[in-house]
Amino acid sequence: MALVVQKFGGTSVGNPERIREVARRIAETRGAGHRVVVVVSAMGHTTDQLLDLAHQVCRRPPRRELDMLLSTGEQVSIALVAMALEDLGVPAISLTGAQVGIHTDGMYTRARIRRISTGRIGEELEAGRVVVVAGFQGITDGWDITTLGRGGSDTTAVALAAALQADVCEIYTDVVGVFTADPRVVPHARLLPVISHGEMLELASLGAAVLQPRSVELAAQYGVVIHVRSSFERREGTRVVPEANLEKAMVVTGVTHDRNVAKVTVIDVPDRPGVAFRLFSELAAAGINVDMIVQTAKQQATTDLLFTVARTDLEQTLEITRRVAAELGTRDVRHDDTVGKVSIVGAGMVSNPGVAARMFGALAAQGINIQAISTSEIKVSCLIDEQRLEEAVRAVHDAFAPGAASEQPALIQPR
Amino acid sequence: MALVVQKFGGTSVGNPERIREVARRIAETRGAGHRVVVVVSAMGHTTDQLLDLAHQVCRRPPRRELDMLLSTGEQVSIALVAMALEDLGVPAISLTGAQVGIHTDGMYTRARIRRISTGRIGEELEAGRVVVVAGFQGITDGWDITTLGRGGSDTTAVALAAALQADVCEIYTDVVGVFTADPRVVPHARLLPVISHGEMLELASLGAAVLQPRSVELAAQYGVVIHVRSSFERREGTRVVPEANLEKAMVVTGVTHDRNVAKVTVIDVPDRPGVAFRLFSELAAAGINVDMIVQTAKQQATTDLLFTVARTDLEQTLEITRRVAAELGTRDVRHDDTVGKVSIVGAGMVSNPGVAARMFGALAAQGINIQAISTSEIKVSCLIDEQRLEEAVRAVHDAFAPGAASEQPALIQPR
Repeated sequence: MALVVQKFGGTSVGNPERIREVARRIAETRGAGHRVVVVVSAMGHTTDQLLDLAHQVCRRPPRRELDMLLSTGEQVSIALVAMALEDLGVPAISLTGAQVGIHTDGMYTRARIRRISTGRIGEELEAGRVVVVAGFQGITDGWDITTLGRGGSDTTAVALAAALQADVCEIYTDVVGVFTADPRVVPHARLLPVISHGEMLELASLGAAVLQPRSVELAAQYGVVIHVRSSFERREGTRVVPEANLEKAMVVTGVTHDRNVAKVTVIDVPDRPGVAFRLFSELAAAGINVDMIVQTAKQQATTDLLFTVARTDLEQTLEITRRVAAELGTRDVRHDDTVGKVSIVGAGMVSNPGVAARMFGALAAQGINIQAISTSEIKVSCLIDEQRLEEAVRAVHDAFAPGAASEQPALIQPR
Repeated sequence: MALVVQKFGGTSVGNPERIREVARRIAETRGAGHRVVVVVSAMGHTTDQLLDLAHQVCRRPPRRELDMLLSTGEQVSIALVAMALEDLGVPAISLTGAQVGIHTDGMYTRARIRRISTGRIGEELEAGRVVVVAGFQGITDGWDITTLGRGGSDTTAVALAAALQADVCEIYTDVVGVFTADPRVVPHARLLPVISHGEMLELASLGAAVLQPRSVELAAQYGVVIHVRSSFERREGTRVVPEANLEKAMVVTGVTHDRNVAKVTVIDVPDRPGVAFRLFSELAAAGINVDMIVQTAKQQATTDLLFTVARTDLEQTLEITRRVAAELGTRDVRHDDTVGKVSIVGAGMVSNPGVAARMFGALAAQGINIQAISTSEIKVSCLIDEQRLEEAVRAVHDAFAPGAASEQPALIQPR
């Protein structure tokens, strides 16, 4: 008898019929003798509708009140899923983040989980119930409701799986698994049956949109096996496992792209120590993730500082950057929100020189200009014109695909 | 500087524009130097929509899960009202029933408040904030969410006013106040500027639908002055005050009617002590309020037992009654859900004989048959055919209205 955490996203519980289907899936798992903890998101477009309401009553809704508002979406879903289970004769109970005891910090709209109380869930499982937990939400020590940011239900599911030492965390979603590239852009992209946490983390961060990066980070940290599956099709999906469980690392596992990117450039920053620290620590304090950072040396005492942030953070980023720039003696802050990012990811990259060069070559062959580059041990990212993004993904995918060039190893293939 | 509790119903917060208007009202009160605690209901038809969703996924939704579901409606409202206040520059904070500490028993969908913690509200008021509290909901000692039943937000408001020793509890609603009869039925009905808790309690119980009975009961118990006002018009409305504050009692204050009535008759019950106790204690245990009870003596060892319940409780009532009846040796349980109730209410009735007789006379003159009668010190109710209900209200109102008969005192008039 295993303990299984199953997470169903917003599309999977988008209407009453789908909720009944989700209940049938859960009932099957329970029928096979397993104990089940379910995590659900808000139905369909609920979150967007609530945000729209918020903006109709307030120009800049306070983040605390946004979380009070948005957390209702998941609360509706858990009640309905528990009801649908009861209708099938499966004893079930719904619990909010507060009721479970998902304790977070006080960063409203993007809170981080600090600890999870497992007492109540344990009691309910003991009593033979399926426990249906609201994803995406938590509670501060002062009992204020927080949310974990977009896609936070994945994080809830993985954190619960870690806290409960579950055997597997199944993430049901509207795609059948993780592909070598977005199949809407690269029709011949292949499904990956297994991938490492590290690779998935890069893919998730880079916009593959299957799992929230924070959830993969947590899974890696606690060794949680994530099984990404379709809510609508009975296919095997993709298992995300610790590196050690993989027989061998692929050089390039997948190609991914991201449109939620904006570029900010500060012109003529004084070229002295502490400048970058000053700016990026203020951005971090505001909870803004800075991605690529490039500093271009000039022939004088100043330098240009280029970095990228999520487009959704651009407004706040510019506010902070302009203030800091003015204090540093420059007022020239430029930005561009028509850029996109294409990346290759693969755990074997570090031991295969020339991979980055091959990517640059593929882009150059299409006449696509690279505005910035960033690399890690298992990924290479290039910032380019958003207009050329899909073309770039196809070119890079083809450059690494099996048979693309005979002198190259067959880089992308499912195992 | 007074402490004012203001409650806004579902229609008052029915859409973003109305929420902004509610925020302006609150801002005015605060601008006049008062501390304000606001209680709000779910927006418009939210509760009905949620109930509809529940019934689409489950034939008999568990009450605990219904409360989990329904309580989201008020949570949405409080967040939006707090946001709309912030937008006007008024510092505000929303709190759920759980966050306030509105502790109830565990009777889901019709819970009763046991105690209220005032600590958090006190701190927020101290910090200069308007506190926006979710009506209708509470929390059990085991941290499960409960709701107080339809109209429960009134109860929340009055209970908070009592716990905080507020100067007044203003209930904003979609009517301008309490009338001598329903103005949709009796166009010349008059607005009552003041009424006693006792009279209002009878009116509320009898279906005047302006205030929830439980809220008036609480107000009477703790001496809370309720001020019923329109959300949409700037009129003075009706004050509901302790009896002692009234100069004199009117014989008949108002005429009211109720359609949410069903009649149940148990035929041939053994005529021995303990039978009524047996049945009505089981109904009470299920949380069902029994209203009129009439026992008709026969020429033999059995009797017929007639009683009324809310139509919404009929199904459950029949289940229990049939079981108990079978145990008592009779299976003949009849019911009728096409009845209605017309009542007169007035604190001066007890010292004016002949009031009941005049009411029966008015109904007889219209050829309306009375199926059952119940009386208290300040009211007389008649159960009649629902089809004749409006006609009955008009006839009774006219019989007691000023000038209707010169030998009668002018019974219904605003003071």
